[in-house]
Amino acid sequence: MASTFGTLFRISTWGESHGGGVGVVIDGCPPRLPLTEADIQPDLDRRRPGQSDIVTPRKEDDACTILSGVFRGLTLGTPISIMVRNTDARPEAYTEMETHYRPSHADFTYQSKYGIRNWEGGGRSSARETIGRVAAAAVAKKVLRTLHPDLEILAWVAAIQDIEAEGDSNAVTAAQIEANAVRCPDAVTATRMIERIRQVRSEGDSVGGIIEAVIRNCPAGLGEPVFDRLEADLAKAMMSLPATKGFEVGSGFSGTTLRGSEHNDAFRMEGARVRTTSNLSGGIQGGISNGEPILLRVAFKPTATIAREQETVTVAGENATLAARGRHDPCVLPRAVPLVEAMAALVLCDHVLRQRALDVLPR
Amino acid sequence: MASTFGTLFRISTWGESHGGGVGVVIDGCPPRLPLTEADIQPDLDRRRPGQSDIVTPRKEDDACTILSGVFRGLTLGTPISIMVRNTDARPEAYTEMETHYRPSHADFTYQSKYGIRNWEGGGRSSARETIGRVAAAAVAKKVLRTLHPDLEILAWVAAIQDIEAEGDSNAVTAAQIEANAVRCPDAVTATRMIERIRQVRSEGDSVGGIIEAVIRNCPAGLGEPVFDRLEADLAKAMMSLPATKGFEVGSGFSGTTLRGSEHNDAFRMEGARVRTTSNLSGGIQGGISNGEPILLRVAFKPTATIAREQETVTVAGENATLAARGRHDPCVLPRAVPLVEAMAALVLCDHVLRQRALDVLPR
Amino acid sequence: MASTFGTLFRISTWGESHGGGVGVVIDGCPPRLPLTEADIQPDLDRRRPGQSDIVTPRKEDDACTILSGVFRGLTLGTPISIMVRNTDARPEAYTEMETHYRPSHADFTYQSKYGIRNWEGGGRSSARETIGRVAAAAVAKKVLRTLHPDLEILAWVAAIQDIEAEGDSNAVTAAQIEANAVRCPDAVTATRMIERIRQVRSEGDSVGGIIEAVIRNCPAGLGEPVFDRLEADLAKAMMSLPATKGFEVGSGFSGTTLRGSEHNDAFRMEGARVRTTSNLSGGIQGGISNGEPILLRVAFKPTATIAREQETVTVAGENATLAARGRHDPCVLPRAVPLVEAMAALVLCDHVLRQRALDVLPR
Amino acid sequence: MASTFGTLFRISTWGESHGGGVGVVIDGCPPRLPLTEADIQPDLDRRRPGQSDIVTPRKEDDACTILSGVFRGLTLGTPISIMVRNTDARPEAYTEMETHYRPSHADFTYQSKYGIRNWEGGGRSSARETIGRVAAAAVAKKVLRTLHPDLEILAWVAAIQDIEAEGDSNAVTAAQIEANAVRCPDAVTATRMIERIRQVRSEGDSVGGIIEAVIRNCPAGLGEPVFDRLEADLAKAMMSLPATKGFEVGSGFSGTTLRGSEHNDAFRMEGARVRTTSNLSGGIQGGISNGEPILLRVAFKPTATIAREQETVTVAGENATLAARGRHDPCVLPRAVPLVEAMAALVLCDHVLRQRALDVLPR
Repeated sequence: MASTFGTLFRISTWGESHGGGVGVVIDGCPPRLPLTEADIQPDLDRRRPGQSDIVTPRKEDDACTILSGVFRGLTLGTPISIMVRNTDARPEAYTEMETHYRPSHADFTYQSKYGIRNWEGGGRSSARETIGRVAAAAVAKKVLRTLHPDLEILAWVAAIQDIEAEGDSNAVTAAQIEANAVRCPDAVTATRMIERIRQVRSEGDSVGGIIEAVIRNCPAGLGEPVFDRLEADLAKAMMSLPATKGFEVGSGFSGTTLRGSEHNDAFRMEGARVRTTSNLSGGIQGGISNGEPILLRVAFKPTATIAREQETVTVAGENATLAARGRHDPCVLPRAVPLVEAMAALVLCDHVLRQRALDVLPR
Repeated sequence: MASTFGTLFRISTWGESHGGGVGVVIDGCPPRLPLTEADIQPDLDRRRPGQSDIVTPRKEDDACTILSGVFRGLTLGTPISIMVRNTDARPEAYTEMETHYRPSHADFTYQSKYGIRNWEGGGRSSARETIGRVAAAAVAKKVLRTLHPDLEILAWVAAIQDIEAEGDSNAVTAAQIEANAVRCPDAVTATRMIERIRQVRSEGDSVGGIIEAVIRNCPAGLGEPVFDRLEADLAKAMMSLPATKGFEVGSGFSGTTLRGSEHNDAFRMEGARVRTTSNLSGGIQGGISNGEPILLRVAFKPTATIAREQETVTVAGENATLAARGRHDPCVLPRAVPLVEAMAALVLCDHVLRQRALDVLPR
Repeated sequence: MASTFGTLFRISTWGESHGGGVGVVIDGCPPRLPLTEADIQPDLDRRRPGQSDIVTPRKEDDACTILSGVFRGLTLGTPISIMVRNTDARPEAYTEMETHYRPSHADFTYQSKYGIRNWEGGGRSSARETIGRVAAAAVAKKVLRTLHPDLEILAWVAAIQDIEAEGDSNAVTAAQIEANAVRCPDAVTATRMIERIRQVRSEGDSVGGIIEAVIRNCPAGLGEPVFDRLEADLAKAMMSLPATKGFEVGSGFSGTTLRGSEHNDAFRMEGARVRTTSNLSGGIQGGISNGEPILLRVAFKPTATIAREQETVTVAGENATLAARGRHDPCVLPRAVPLVEAMAALVLCDHVLRQRALDVLPR
Repeated sequence: MASTFGTLFRISTWGESHGGGVGVVIDGCPPRLPLTEADIQPDLDRRRPGQSDIVTPRKEDDACTILSGVFRGLTLGTPISIMVRNTDARPEAYTEMETHYRPSHADFTYQSKYGIRNWEGGGRSSARETIGRVAAAAVAKKVLRTLHPDLEILAWVAAIQDIEAEGDSNAVTAAQIEANAVRCPDAVTATRMIERIRQVRSEGDSVGGIIEAVIRNCPAGLGEPVFDRLEADLAKAMMSLPATKGFEVGSGFSGTTLRGSEHNDAFRMEGARVRTTSNLSGGIQGGISNGEPILLRVAFKPTATIAREQETVTVAGENATLAARGRHDPCVLPRAVPLVEAMAALVLCDHVLRQRALDVLPR
């Protein structure tokens, strides 16, 4: 269904940006996992507004509460309900949205689909909805750490417009990513990215870019051909995030210029383990992980809501102009880094459990 | 589940390349739709081997049989089972696959996941599995034509390696696409593409490329935020096809270099209808179609199975070399064009029915 | 998944009896439906403790809050999150449950399944979980009233132990049912039932019985053969309620003693409408509603938690005895009447939407 | 979806009684399970027509073919497609069905729902559809035997009309059941049942009855509260079979006359194992198996299609009479015994895999 994701580790998010709050219900979390709000809050803090001067200055501490599914610090195996209240809603900043459709935003399409929309803030299309995903993913990551302690998921900003990070994806560390406000592990480039974001904000404009992610030490055997291939589920996960326009795994679009003899990853034994000498496959072959690092890239468009005056139409069907007020991110990427990690964690946790359900007969 | 796709118009494919055959069961097809094998066969013929000199010369006519769900030429509303027998299986061409993993193919990962694999041909990872998708999509397209007669889905080869087609996506016609063996609507470029494919085949190698697709006259309002956004479901659909490495909608990765003021699609009234003056959104905003053409691109890697000798390992864990025999496509793209169209049709048909189920109260 | 019910009108309940609260998320509710808490509270009040002297005296007002999915009194088409706080939890009444398994309760099986359980109250197995179902069903009933204004769902207590109500199921009214504390439309028998319940409570014991339900003016054509037959989905819905042991539709078990010539419902025209002269089918034939009243019966066992001393074992594996403290219902049936109605409403709403999604081609 | 059953071990049946055949696709079967047609055929033979003189004399050998998912005698983990051709279809026996609705059959409701029906034979409502279930269940039983070798599922005819079998359910053996044509383990009563069936057939009439089933050595911990309780999924499974009108688990409807102190099953240690001294719960408490035998009963109505003349209406809306020709079962129960076992096996296999997917953290 629309707001449910996953097969075995299954989450249902709910909530609008302006309303009682946002949240998530997790069904299918294994019992006896240690879990408190303190496991979840750090990930929410990486996502929340106001964390640096290059993101929206909205003041929301996004404090989460676990309402069910945990007893004396351990999961019960029953649904885990997690909630975050809305605290800094300012519907008065959105009065024009009642009558004007923001260009390239979800206003017109929500109205077309539902015949109604919550025009105070982005409603359901607000990035605030992703709080539920991040909270659920914090739980998923704990499951993954218990079952596959070496598995590591890292995402970072690889490009802001034409400014591209340099360096080896396989060597990036969490510390490098969190060392600056834009979450780019290449410190020198990060400075240029931050400058660019400040500049476009000062011009009432916005920018997009590319987030890259790596999943290290993923066990071979995850992914369910033919439709629930690992890259297909990752693609859906990433393309379900607001503002995404593209997805690549491994060699992606650039791999299309190679010949097969160049693109194929040769197998070689490394001790008792089958390895590949290159990784253009990006860790997935035939829809199933092969044990090499999973590499993916996600394209995010520039934020649609900008302060500059734009041409648009009204709900009454008249041409008009609109200059957004409100407190918007000039660039979504720094705050989208934990979202990409979250979606990867949700997909992997689900597939780890699915593989455990399938692989039950003696080998 | 692994081999099921869709929510309301739901298909389950089955079958290996070497075995009794391949097929599909469609659950949820509306009753009273005129349907015979003649509605399905043309699409299968566009997908089948041996249709030109730049694809695999295997001789399979891929003749389909409808086994259930149709009575006197009309669908019953019950499951439609469609089957195609395997006729040109030559397992002897695959004897080395029993012991050697083909680089960048699914051999090693299937073995890792399942602890067993059908090494006669590609087994379940064979592109032969897509027959079921194409057959089901032929039915989906008939549903779409009945409910939205103007809706049109077209895919074509936009690039083979560095050879890129020119021309306006919005003007491409089916006749242009089908006018040449590579299915590129730009006739001049098509000739160069065909030459390139012949050349790499003669060198025992393979090439990849990019398929582009457009969906015209799609009604506004399709797509189900937040997880089943239209672009998310399209991304999953395309990335579930064999050999895909990337997906873009609208401006895709190139849109990440623009500013918001450049990227936003301004709304303007066109008579009583809300239109956009540009279409960098690619026909989808906030996960929902806006009535503009839906534009998407899919990256296909070069075929993994090549005649050249490659380094690999054996199932016994020894380094080895392998030069594939068998009759393989030097380039999957010409035959993948109907696959991209098929997956688009399956996604759209499902979302059209979903929107009908949701939009039931008086507006 | 475990805590999700429905295909298109899909609900996910969460919560334990002792914890932050209980609630439900509804995904797939049509947009533009008028909805406030006042639409939901009356149904919750019929379910809540303390409403009469024959049910548990716990004091919980079960006041609900709609947290999302509604804007200015209308549904948005997005997930509707509804929550009820736990207010009268008294974990001290359950200290023995930490060490002793209550006979015929869920303590032992939850421990076996999950390796952990919330022993403060019934945890997830508490009837408190059904609050989410009743709240969601209140929304489902509003959808049904909009689409099928004449459709009516009524349930009542047909038997307490051997005390059976008399009268014609087809003539029962809501007013008759709500006229007494036991919710039996036969006033004379109701008095005897109430006496019996008071008596067994005074003896530290409990009783069970049978709830009957009728669905009137249900349109023909609901139900999805072969697995999601209407009676199959109703059976699952009812047997998912706590304390249920049996389900019948139409003639039920007593119909097994008849011959086909006696059991078949003859068709006769009633004006332009096809009717049956009897209704042993109970309104469903071949898994699909036929337009006649749907009649069903549900068996509820006597409450497991009783004040009398019983033999049991401890979590440490020792034989022991247990006499429950706490405030329990001597008979669940009066409060289960709205639960049976709720589950019927959820099944019907889902199938009404499913039929709308299937029946889209011109007849 | 309508024709899909199960969550992890998931089956999709297809086919009408008159058409290309019937079949099933199993998705989610664990790999490396030994499987050939010889594992499936015996169960199909217990279901097929013509096996004795008290069932329909139609001549169909119902020989099955495995089309996919098996390689050299072992399952691949990919979809298993199994097919049975229709061989003895005689549409001419059904010509009156084109115009006349059979009383208490699915003719009228299918027409109401779908606006079309296959009136040659029962179409999709034919018991022939259950071939797919029985075939899939034969695979499920093999999975169960591998994971839980002691688990045993037995069903038998407990009553034909008022003729009730005697004896202890817990002592019934497969040999006793298969020793006579009616599949009643009480040999003396079986003779009376067979006589009764012959008699009603000679009178152009039909009878119904009750099938009882026991599941022995089921592990504790199966079932997924709150909606997918084990008894709820069993109820749905059984009520999805043609001709069923009622379902009971454990004490069922008769348990409603007991008090809690009589109905509760006391726990006692049996060595290190927790047992109950009685089993009115029928092996399920709180929706989860407790390790005791699971006991259930299913009510089957008398066959609707009878030779006697009955009142009905035509598709043109006129009152009429109808006396069925064709070769029908005077009593469905002997052939329904393997169906009840099959549905139980499908539910258990699914829940065994679900519990394996949930119970992944160290205890």
